[in-house]
Amino acid sequence: MTTSSAEIICVGTELLLGDILNSNAQYLAQQLAQLGISHHYQTVVGDNPLRLARAIAIACERARLIIFTGGLGPTPDDITIATIADFFGVPLVENEAVLADIKAKFARRGRTMTPNNRKQALLPEGSYVLDNPQGTAPGILWQPRPELHLMTFPGVPRELHAMWQTTAIPYLQSQGWINGIIHSRTLKFWGTSESGLAARVDDFFKLENPTVAPYASGGVIKLRISAKAKTLAAAQQLIEPVARQLRAIGGIDCFGEDDDTLAHSVGRLLAKEHATLAVAESCTGGGLGAMITAVPGSSAYFMGGIISYDNAVKERLLGVSAQALAEYGAVSASVAEQMAAGVRKQLMTDWGLSITGIAGPDGGSREKPVGLVYIGIANGLETRHIECRFGHRRDREWIRLMSRNTALDILRRALLGNTEVIPKP
Amino acid sequence: MTTSSAEIICVGTELLLGDILNSNAQYLAQQLAQLGISHHYQTVVGDNPLRLARAIAIACERARLIIFTGGLGPTPDDITIATIADFFGVPLVENEAVLADIKAKFARRGRTMTPNNRKQALLPEGSYVLDNPQGTAPGILWQPRPELHLMTFPGVPRELHAMWQTTAIPYLQSQGWINGIIHSRTLKFWGTSESGLAARVDDFFKLENPTVAPYASGGVIKLRISAKAKTLAAAQQLIEPVARQLRAIGGIDCFGEDDDTLAHSVGRLLAKEHATLAVAESCTGGGLGAMITAVPGSSAYFMGGIISYDNAVKERLLGVSAQALAEYGAVSASVAEQMAAGVRKQLMTDWGLSITGIAGPDGGSREKPVGLVYIGIANGLETRHIECRFGHRRDREWIRLMSRNTALDILRRALLGNTEVIPKP
Repeated sequence: MTTSSAEIICVGTELLLGDILNSNAQYLAQQLAQLGISHHYQTVVGDNPLRLARAIAIACERARLIIFTGGLGPTPDDITIATIADFFGVPLVENEAVLADIKAKFARRGRTMTPNNRKQALLPEGSYVLDNPQGTAPGILWQPRPELHLMTFPGVPRELHAMWQTTAIPYLQSQGWINGIIHSRTLKFWGTSESGLAARVDDFFKLENPTVAPYASGGVIKLRISAKAKTLAAAQQLIEPVARQLRAIGGIDCFGEDDDTLAHSVGRLLAKEHATLAVAESCTGGGLGAMITAVPGSSAYFMGGIISYDNAVKERLLGVSAQALAEYGAVSASVAEQMAAGVRKQLMTDWGLSITGIAGPDGGSREKPVGLVYIGIANGLETRHIECRFGHRRDREWIRLMSRNTALDILRRALLGNTEVIPKP
Repeated sequence: MTTSSAEIICVGTELLLGDILNSNAQYLAQQLAQLGISHHYQTVVGDNPLRLARAIAIACERARLIIFTGGLGPTPDDITIATIADFFGVPLVENEAVLADIKAKFARRGRTMTPNNRKQALLPEGSYVLDNPQGTAPGILWQPRPELHLMTFPGVPRELHAMWQTTAIPYLQSQGWINGIIHSRTLKFWGTSESGLAARVDDFFKLENPTVAPYASGGVIKLRISAKAKTLAAAQQLIEPVARQLRAIGGIDCFGEDDDTLAHSVGRLLAKEHATLAVAESCTGGGLGAMITAVPGSSAYFMGGIISYDNAVKERLLGVSAQALAEYGAVSASVAEQMAAGVRKQLMTDWGLSITGIAGPDGGSREKPVGLVYIGIANGLETRHIECRFGHRRDREWIRLMSRNTALDILRRALLGNTEVIPKP
């Protein structure tokens, strides 16, 4: 059995009741992966000393580093420290520095420390304080046995993150746990399927360092390139040529990297061309504009839009013809084009982008099923439309999300000079 | 050791790498809690047969029902079924019905089954198929020993949810696992702090059946009332008087229950009064409209809106005066009021609601810090504004979220006849 690995133990009955998502386990897992520390198990256990002790016994058998989260608070439910001390047969002693720190934190908030909080200053004899700058509950760093390291963190995510970054990482480094790092870069794609992209980059999945792995979420396809190396720079160097090749294969389908969204990509292209944009939204109800303006600085290119949920608004503010609405219906190629051209004219922008569709669950018909969406795009030169069918199996929010992203992607391709979408002015 | 409890084992190296949040564990935990089935441990393990077998050995010692998720796919990484069969020393046999079902699913998508997928039809001898209507990978229901029940589910959340509801719950019922239920109702509040509300309902936290517990997420404060009883009806009867009392104490701050959002609440009030609404958005960029139209059927009362991100749009489409923009700035009480009145007039609605603010991270100043937001509200009778300060500690998305919800809450209070907000026409 590998004993040079870590184990995460999350303590909290709220996790067993499903009251909260275990985001701490994900955070610690990501951190351990990035630091190149392997971990093979995560255990979740409630606020129960007996069951926690059993989980500790099991973890001691299979890990050399045990990372605890939760159960450090002042209430009787918070049993992590006492249970650990008891398990290793070591007494708890009141740490004067911690006690003074807790008192000071209460004083700063203009409150008096309750007797309960005194408990948080009790630490196992021989352990070190893992300082918590944001909350009252400190953690511990402890080697109860020569080959076993323990760390405890509060369950509050932002306290855990701060303590991990400022104290835990340097400690692990000093103890020889970190012999290199794993660094990742993620390429993001739209307009291709996961299997379609996978087929094009199949050979890369066999690489060993860096590795390449495909993911998909919310319609975005991702390729993650992960390298293991001594330093960040060395890892980046391993990744760079592979990223370059994958971007070349992905071509126009690749819209960005890491935290990029389609809105970032479109924003960069618009800013580069000093071009402006306005949107006209029906079934997305403003969500396209919200996505575009989620990018700080979007006011440089985004002028605004018209949410034409009602047909009268389409007619009056966007100049959509009553005849088209009557003849083809609000969800039609003609109306989508008139919306895009209309909003461009009304807001005096270079580009107009529109969405009209049936997001469901009601309103669908045989000819126009739920998920039928028309996206319109207009510039000074031409006005075009794209018909999309986002299926009726997914729900309203999925159809709205796909509509927004597809609209952004169409504009992105147009800005990149893809004349199949629309010729650039 | 209690052996009448369940354990959840989540299989997947992506969980150990922190690539995904373990939402399946939360879903199953909530479901088990609601069904009154206690579970004391959750284990996460990678796609490694040896380590999975060890996790199974441990779970067999402490649980009578083991629920697996993940590792049912067609690739060599998917090892859950084979590892379970091997652990209990039972051969895998090809299930013809499952194989036919997989082939049919491929045919329906116009594709041919790959040899890989044949593996998904291999099930432990003596196990039952847990049908997967949405994907190719079925689960199993199996009693490898008289006192031990196993269930396997795919890692795809929506497949897991469908299988759990349609097959797993009836199975657990038939096997005597469900002897009562835990039912919850959640009351939702806006316009009060968690501690402020907690102080008003302090006595209720001591109740034992039903219990009352406070939560907060995204600025919404929640009180969850949970009752344990033999039947759903009996649980609802225990909850009802407590819910009534809590709603009375919460008063106008209580906007709904369970899956309600502020947009649902506002939608119901508008529909009841046959009143119509239009929105004018600056810093939220369309997000208020997107929130309102997330409610199916919102076209009955929501006409649309104007995203006036640029000042020229505020002037031209909403009739905001150039003088107000120059004198007070775009983020000002006067502009918010003119936006609300302007959009109401332009879209010819009963109500107009507007948001203008500084969402950051840039654009703040000493007098107008990031987080300063003005909300305007107009009806035929009057136009008013509310000044909000959502702080500079939270990020852009937080400020935008608080702005949207606060705007909806102001309209909600107005529709309920709160004349401090605005007199009703």
